[in-house]
Amino acid sequence: MAIRTIDVRERVMARNDELAAEVRRRLAGAGIPSFNLVSSPGAGKTALLERTLDALGHELEIAVVTGDVQTQNDAERLARRTTRLVQAVVTGGACHLDARQVMESLAAIDLERTQLLFIENVGNLVCPASWDLGETAKIVVMSVTEGEDKPLKYPKMFREAKYAVLNKVDLLPYVPFDVERALAMALEVNPHLRIFRTSALTGRGMSEWLDFLRAQARQAVEA
Amino acid sequence: MAIRTIDVRERVMARNDELAAEVRRRLAGAGIPSFNLVSSPGAGKTALLERTLDALGHELEIAVVTGDVQTQNDAERLARRTTRLVQAVVTGGACHLDARQVMESLAAIDLERTQLLFIENVGNLVCPASWDLGETAKIVVMSVTEGEDKPLKYPKMFREAKYAVLNKVDLLPYVPFDVERALAMALEVNPHLRIFRTSALTGRGMSEWLDFLRAQARQAVEA
Repeated sequence: MAIRTIDVRERVMARNDELAAEVRRRLAGAGIPSFNLVSSPGAGKTALLERTLDALGHELEIAVVTGDVQTQNDAERLARRTTRLVQAVVTGGACHLDARQVMESLAAIDLERTQLLFIENVGNLVCPASWDLGETAKIVVMSVTEGEDKPLKYPKMFREAKYAVLNKVDLLPYVPFDVERALAMALEVNPHLRIFRTSALTGRGMSEWLDFLRAQARQAVEA
Repeated sequence: MAIRTIDVRERVMARNDELAAEVRRRLAGAGIPSFNLVSSPGAGKTALLERTLDALGHELEIAVVTGDVQTQNDAERLARRTTRLVQAVVTGGACHLDARQVMESLAAIDLERTQLLFIENVGNLVCPASWDLGETAKIVVMSVTEGEDKPLKYPKMFREAKYAVLNKVDLLPYVPFDVERALAMALEVNPHLRIFRTSALTGRGMSEWLDFLRAQARQAVEA
């Protein structure tokens, strides 16, 4: 008859937002742009980061926080591509990173030396949309092997993101994926979305992505 | 090069296990058997509970704690079938219930009056396997519309469970599901599993399930 509700969400999220604001203040103070990479599992976040570290690791000091539900496999992959510390967060079941984990990670990162921070979230298009990590922007990664209608199915995530990466474009000849349709759907949900098209495998489209990151790092210092 | 890991899991799970032990003590003290229902989304946990409340609600005092990621739809469905309070937990992104939520729920439940407690977990076959809620037993629900190899794909869950319910057996004529093969796989993973076959829709197989629950409630009082 009656329902009593424990809303874990509201209680925990209020505290998360306070911590996210603190993370944002610290990163802004240090002039570090930070990007929270979100996607379905398997869209290629880690591969994109590997290729990005390979390409920019010698010109920019890039720190990485990477979250995984049960393993630190992604952290191990990334640690092979950088001389810097990779901060792994094993969430133990939770489907997203939270601001407390990013805050704790900052304690291990030499912020003075850092020019760009990537936060690789847990692979999930639902939960991470609701969790502010104090990042400059969320970047949603989708791949051409997924449905074109991902933006309509997960509108909150595509609305929360400022940027999108359409990854695995090297596979376009082999999959029934209509790029124009996918982009139209993404822009229908969020008209302000800037969209990159990349193949982390072949490198196609990476130069525009890398130039964007360089510009972000430069602007953050000038600001 | 280096990886530093924040293992949220270990820290949080140690505390969870303490709370689960406390839940277990309290329920044992009150002579209440408790069942933690776990499954994929859509296997029919809520429908099974609805039918169970309809059938047993007049002879046994049944309390329900039900977890959902974002909504309290399941709680609303169940509240229509019982005169007792239904405790809803909105996990806000987390893919499982934890012992703290069950502990807080117990505070709202009249334990003196309760003869049986159901905890309906979040629909997920991975995370809930690792979280002790202080329950008497986990019951894994799978449906004949899922793959027969669920036990092999999610062995931890089938090992953690003492009981399994193969639900939606009314659909067997219409789906390519080999019951004997599914049961063999389940018993391969966990030879001690007791398996019920039910249709929460038509009621087929429900009498064995209901007799089991009656016996559990009786034994708990005698113990």
